[in-house]
Amino acid sequence: MGTETMQAPSTFDAYRRLTAELPGPDAGAVAAAQERNAQLTKPPAALGRLEGLAQWYAGWRGTGRPVLDRPQVVVFAGNHGVAARGVSAFPPEVTVQMVANFRAGGAAINQLSETFGARMDVHALELDRPTADFTEAPAMSEDECLAALATGWDAVDPQADLLVTGEMGIGNTTSAAAIANALFGGAAADWVGRGTGVDAGGLDRKTAVVEAGVARHSGGDGLDTLARLGGREIAAMAGAILRARTERIPVLLDGFICCAAAACLHALRADALDHCAAAHVSAESAHPAMLERLGLDPLLSLGLRLGEGSGAALAIGILKGAIACHSGMATFAEAGVSDG
Amino acid sequence: MGTETMQAPSTFDAYRRLTAELPGPDAGAVAAAQERNAQLTKPPAALGRLEGLAQWYAGWRGTGRPVLDRPQVVVFAGNHGVAARGVSAFPPEVTVQMVANFRAGGAAINQLSETFGARMDVHALELDRPTADFTEAPAMSEDECLAALATGWDAVDPQADLLVTGEMGIGNTTSAAAIANALFGGAAADWVGRGTGVDAGGLDRKTAVVEAGVARHSGGDGLDTLARLGGREIAAMAGAILRARTERIPVLLDGFICCAAAACLHALRADALDHCAAAHVSAESAHPAMLERLGLDPLLSLGLRLGEGSGAALAIGILKGAIACHSGMATFAEAGVSDG
Repeated sequence: MGTETMQAPSTFDAYRRLTAELPGPDAGAVAAAQERNAQLTKPPAALGRLEGLAQWYAGWRGTGRPVLDRPQVVVFAGNHGVAARGVSAFPPEVTVQMVANFRAGGAAINQLSETFGARMDVHALELDRPTADFTEAPAMSEDECLAALATGWDAVDPQADLLVTGEMGIGNTTSAAAIANALFGGAAADWVGRGTGVDAGGLDRKTAVVEAGVARHSGGDGLDTLARLGGREIAAMAGAILRARTERIPVLLDGFICCAAAACLHALRADALDHCAAAHVSAESAHPAMLERLGLDPLLSLGLRLGEGSGAALAIGILKGAIACHSGMATFAEAGVSDG
Repeated sequence: MGTETMQAPSTFDAYRRLTAELPGPDAGAVAAAQERNAQLTKPPAALGRLEGLAQWYAGWRGTGRPVLDRPQVVVFAGNHGVAARGVSAFPPEVTVQMVANFRAGGAAINQLSETFGARMDVHALELDRPTADFTEAPAMSEDECLAALATGWDAVDPQADLLVTGEMGIGNTTSAAAIANALFGGAAADWVGRGTGVDAGGLDRKTAVVEAGVARHSGGDGLDTLARLGGREIAAMAGAILRARTERIPVLLDGFICCAAAACLHALRADALDHCAAAHVSAESAHPAMLERLGLDPLLSLGLRLGEGSGAALAIGILKGAIACHSGMATFAEAGVSDG
C-alpha cells in the first residue's frame, strides 16, 4: 500500500474488510530506532517520552532514522441537526463563518499550521444540509456517511509524513458525546461537557439530547454509531485517520471530537489507532475518560478546548523535536563522549 | 534599560542593589493584549494556557501584539569539585566532551535549537578548574562567582526576544540539590535525585555530600548560597536570567539545575522570576517541589531529565504557537464571525 492512490471503500462492509487487514508498523525500523537511540549522546532515557515518540514514528515511516518535514493539517466542517436544540453557545451560522475565516487565514489553526510548517487544507461538507437531528432519526444515512468518509479519505496527501485532523461544526461536542456514550456506556452526563462554553441550561439540554439519541440508536458497530450519531466532519475525520493508516502516515489526534471520530475506528478494531498519538488532553470534561478508554496518554495538557485541530497542531512541534533529536544527534562513538 | 549595553555588576552588593530595582512588565501592553485576546475568533478562554502565556510575553515585550522571532539558547558548562565524590553516573571528563559535542552540533540541544529557530551559544567556564568540593570549602570565592555571573550576563544578546539557559556539568544535580536544600530547608534527601542515572550507592553518597555541604554553608542570601554551593555554569545561568530581566527578555526555565540558579534570584527578591515561565517539569525527583516553591506551573511534563536547556527549547514551540495565535488571528469584526 502507499505506492498507488487507493480509492475510498464504497460500502460499510468494504470499510469493515479494510479495517480487518490494516498494516502494522515496521518492526525492523522500530528495532533500528531503538538501537540508534541507545547510542545517542545522552544518558539512557534522558529524553523521556520523546524517545518512545521517535521510535513509534520510525516504525510507521519504515526507517530507523526518519524525518518529519511534510505535516498536513486538514480541517473538516459540518453542520448538525441537533444544533437547533440549543446545545451550543454559538449559533449554527458560525460554522460557515469560521470556514471563511480558515480560508482567509485568520483562525488559530492557520497560525499554528504556519508556525509548525504544516500544509493546511479545509473541507466544508454540505454546510447547507445539516445532518438530521439524531433524537428523531439517524444523523446520516449510510450513503451520506460514506460520502463524508470518502471526503476525509481523499483529503489525505499520500506524500504527507504526519496528519492532523481538525474540525469545526456548531453542535459537534453533542454529537461526539453521543458517540462516546454509545460506544463506551455509562450515563449521558458522563460524556457531556461545556463545549464552546454553554451555560447550565444548555448543558441540561445537551445531556437530554445525548440521552435521547443514544436510547434511540443503541447497538451497531463503530460505523453504525458514526452514521447514526455523528456528523459529516466527524465521519470525514474517521475516513482520513483510516486512510492515513493505509499509507502508514502517523496521526496526532486532537481533542474530544477528533477522538470521538477515532473511537469509531477503535470500536471496529482495538489496534486501529496504533498509528495515532494523543496530542493533548483538552478542557472538555469527558476528554480524559475518552483518552483512557482509547488507551492513549496525551502529550500536552494546556487547557485548550478550541478544536480545529489546534491542540494537535501545537504538538507537531513536540514530535518534530523528538524526531530531530533522534535522527540528528551524534552517537557516543561519533562524538567521542564516554558513555558512563 | 535595554537601549545601551549594561555592564555586569562588579560586586555582590551591586547585584543586590540591581535586584532591588528590577523593571516590571508593561501594564499597558498587558491590558492591550487582554483586550485583543477577547476579540479573537475563538470562544473565550478556548486556547487555555496559551492565552495567558501570550499576555505575559506581551507585557515583558512592551506591546499588545508581540512577535517571537529571535530566541536565544545559551548553554553554560562547568566542572564541580564534588564530582570526585562519586555522585554521578558519568566521569567528569564528559563535561568537556559534551562541550565539543555542542560545538560540533551533535547534542540534543543543537537539534532542538535548530527545530525552533533559536540561535545557540555555548560557554565553557574554566573546565580545567573545577569548583572546590563544597563539603570542604565554599565552591567559589565571591570573585570566582562574580566572574561566572558576568559570563552569563554578557552571554545574553540584548536583541533576543526570548532566552533559554541550559547547562552541562558532571555533578551539577548535587550542587543544585544543595542550593535547594539551603534555600528551601527540609532534609537533603528531599532534594537529591538520580541525576543522569546514579545507582543506589551513588544516591546515598550524593545525599551525604549535600547534607555535609548545607551543614557547612548555612545562612547567607541567594548570592552567598550560589557561591558556596553552586557551580560556575549555575552562576552563569543566574547572571543570564537577571540580565534578561533588565532587558525585558522573557525566559523559559529548563529543569532542576536551571531552576536552582533561578531560585538564588528568587531568594533575593520574590518577584525576581516574573519574567520567567517554567518550560517543563523534569523526571528529576525534586523538580516538582522546586517549581512549587518558586510558584511556577510547568508547561510540559514529558519525563525529560537531560538538561542542556532541552526542555525549555522544546517549549519554545509552545510559546511560538501561543504568540502566533495571539498576534496573527483575526478578530470577530475582521472575520465577520458572530461572537455568540
